[in-house]
Amino acid sequence: MFKAELSDPNILKTSFDAISSIVDEVQIQTDSEGIRLDALDRSHITFVHLELKASLFDEYVCDEPEKINIDTDELMKVLKRSKSNDRVIMSLDEGNFIITFEGEAKRTFKIRLIDMEYEAPSPPELEHPTKFDIPFALLKDSIQDMDIFSDKIALIVDSEKFRASAEGEFGDANIEYLHGEKIDTEAKSIFSLEKIREMLKADKFSDVATIKLGNDMPLHLSLKMVSEDGELSFLLAPRIEADD
Amino acid sequence: MFKAELSDPNILKTSFDAISSIVDEVQIQTDSEGIRLDALDRSHITFVHLELKASLFDEYVCDEPEKINIDTDELMKVLKRSKSNDRVIMSLDEGNFIITFEGEAKRTFKIRLIDMEYEAPSPPELEHPTKFDIPFALLKDSIQDMDIFSDKIALIVDSEKFRASAEGEFGDANIEYLHGEKIDTEAKSIFSLEKIREMLKADKFSDVATIKLGNDMPLHLSLKMVSEDGELSFLLAPRIEADD
Amino acid sequence: MFKAELSDPNILKTSFDAISSIVDEVQIQTDSEGIRLDALDRSHITFVHLELKASLFDEYVCDEPEKINIDTDELMKVLKRSKSNDRVIMSLDEGNFIITFEGEAKRTFKIRLIDMEYEAPSPPELEHPTKFDIPFALLKDSIQDMDIFSDKIALIVDSEKFRASAEGEFGDANIEYLHGEKIDTEAKSIFSLEKIREMLKADKFSDVATIKLGNDMPLHLSLKMVSEDGELSFLLAPRIEADD
Repeated sequence: MFKAELSDPNILKTSFDAISSIVDEVQIQTDSEGIRLDALDRSHITFVHLELKASLFDEYVCDEPEKINIDTDELMKVLKRSKSNDRVIMSLDEGNFIITFEGEAKRTFKIRLIDMEYEAPSPPELEHPTKFDIPFALLKDSIQDMDIFSDKIALIVDSEKFRASAEGEFGDANIEYLHGEKIDTEAKSIFSLEKIREMLKADKFSDVATIKLGNDMPLHLSLKMVSEDGELSFLLAPRIEADD
Repeated sequence: MFKAELSDPNILKTSFDAISSIVDEVQIQTDSEGIRLDALDRSHITFVHLELKASLFDEYVCDEPEKINIDTDELMKVLKRSKSNDRVIMSLDEGNFIITFEGEAKRTFKIRLIDMEYEAPSPPELEHPTKFDIPFALLKDSIQDMDIFSDKIALIVDSEKFRASAEGEFGDANIEYLHGEKIDTEAKSIFSLEKIREMLKADKFSDVATIKLGNDMPLHLSLKMVSEDGELSFLLAPRIEADD
Repeated sequence: MFKAELSDPNILKTSFDAISSIVDEVQIQTDSEGIRLDALDRSHITFVHLELKASLFDEYVCDEPEKINIDTDELMKVLKRSKSNDRVIMSLDEGNFIITFEGEAKRTFKIRLIDMEYEAPSPPELEHPTKFDIPFALLKDSIQDMDIFSDKIALIVDSEKFRASAEGEFGDANIEYLHGEKIDTEAKSIFSLEKIREMLKADKFSDVATIKLGNDMPLHLSLKMVSEDGELSFLLAPRIEADD
């Protein structure tokens, strides 16, 4: 038996808003410790990891581990129907993932489980030379529309600043943020702006994003709840190309 | 002479938002008692009835009965231009239905009357076995996007609950609302979700909707003003089909 | 060297929202007194004039006159990225017009200067027989959607009222506003509603618009800051045609 109850649907909604734009199908794994999900997009550019601990939920029961294979679009269609003050209850029956929203009315949605072979991908172990925090809203506001001039973006960090930079035929855009961390090296990698924008959809998950950057290394972006009960993180492969 | 003055344009706007999505042309009938309209959509699925009593208006004059034949899209284009605190004055000249909005400026719109044969339809007399009230906002929020999984919806009532249910290939949706009425029978009919959504546009007319349901019978949905000065009601034919 | 700093990006944003919908490319001229721009749309129907005095800026430096040739769409894409509480700094380098927004992060956009022959147009000297003020929000709200019935609009002023009137096959629209000025003549000209709508985009520039009208003469619409540090004005050629 699996049952998980939350007083606020926004964590699920914002997580799957990002996840459903990255992968079409996903396997949610549940056990007594909580819920987790590891997925890799079709082109092997973005790895996404979600973890929601049992302690996050108002009620959490999971007798034996379950693997919930689901179409992320169908799931997102349902999550979009939630309202901020609805309680959310997740459960399973024979062939369905069941989501119930309890507000003035009780609304139950059953989403068909799908049949698929799924081997949960493991992210590569990486040692990033730099790490810093940035307000997520600031990151989102600054970066998401930088496609004014280009479809790729350089992310650069040095001892003082984090910079995002896009160069195009008609103009350049450059964002600077004083990160206030002790960083004693420089790092720079180039990414697809479209792929970054997918991750930025998770803006209700956490106020602060932690970024790890290296030279021509994947971007590691992680969002952690203050309570440490949940984490959503992304690993995005760099675009390897000359950029001068 | 016909002249009717209202301090609030929203009743007209919300009524014709629904009406114009159901019928293209309509005949508004006026007499000393007020304004009424009965219309049937082209496919004979939805019957709509609007009644605004003379007492609803701040000023109401109608010397002799008038029949105002009008294109509902043209009328809605004008009503959309009203602002919440505008006074509305309706009148007639030789060939036009005249709507005036009085705010900081005075805005007058003349809509050409159209030439048509119109026999106001009469709805069938029906004895529904069940009747209950439901907050209109709740009805709208719950039902309007149930097309996630299907384009038809079963409406079911029993002694305890009102249920709306949609089943599809990829999932099911089910809404439950405790109606709190004394109902000692069950009733179930299936409707087109698209047709229901047209009626739900009238959400500023009244806070409460009264629903009458039977087995494979038309849905009767009525919206009444608290003051009893106005009523907007719909009769929607069921889809006759097996739904197990 | 040219540098101009403003504490509020809205004046630029609202000005170029209108300007970029009227002309594709423009020459901004700067000298020690401030910034100005005169432009004529391709079809020679709308003339637009913008003037922002040095005194408007928190900091203003311009050693020698500069001519900044720029694509208005590229400029508008950048200005749209500003937020209300950003500081804006404009400057120049060899081949770029540089706009910096300073908020929580510092965002710098370089827009390529374009190569063009540009002779700043001079508007004709006109003596309009009438002149009056009107709240700009009222003008915008009343006029912008008058295309319900027609794509042209008559603007008429007499001793009492300013009227905007559109007549079409399916209906007429008529707006009246008591201008409260001493006007002892009548004037009427007809304009393209689409062209008027372009000017109305500048709605954050000033609360009040000053209108000058004549018979079959261009419309003069001017927006002045209370501080007299800036002006945005338009001259719109009339449509010459019989309209009765």
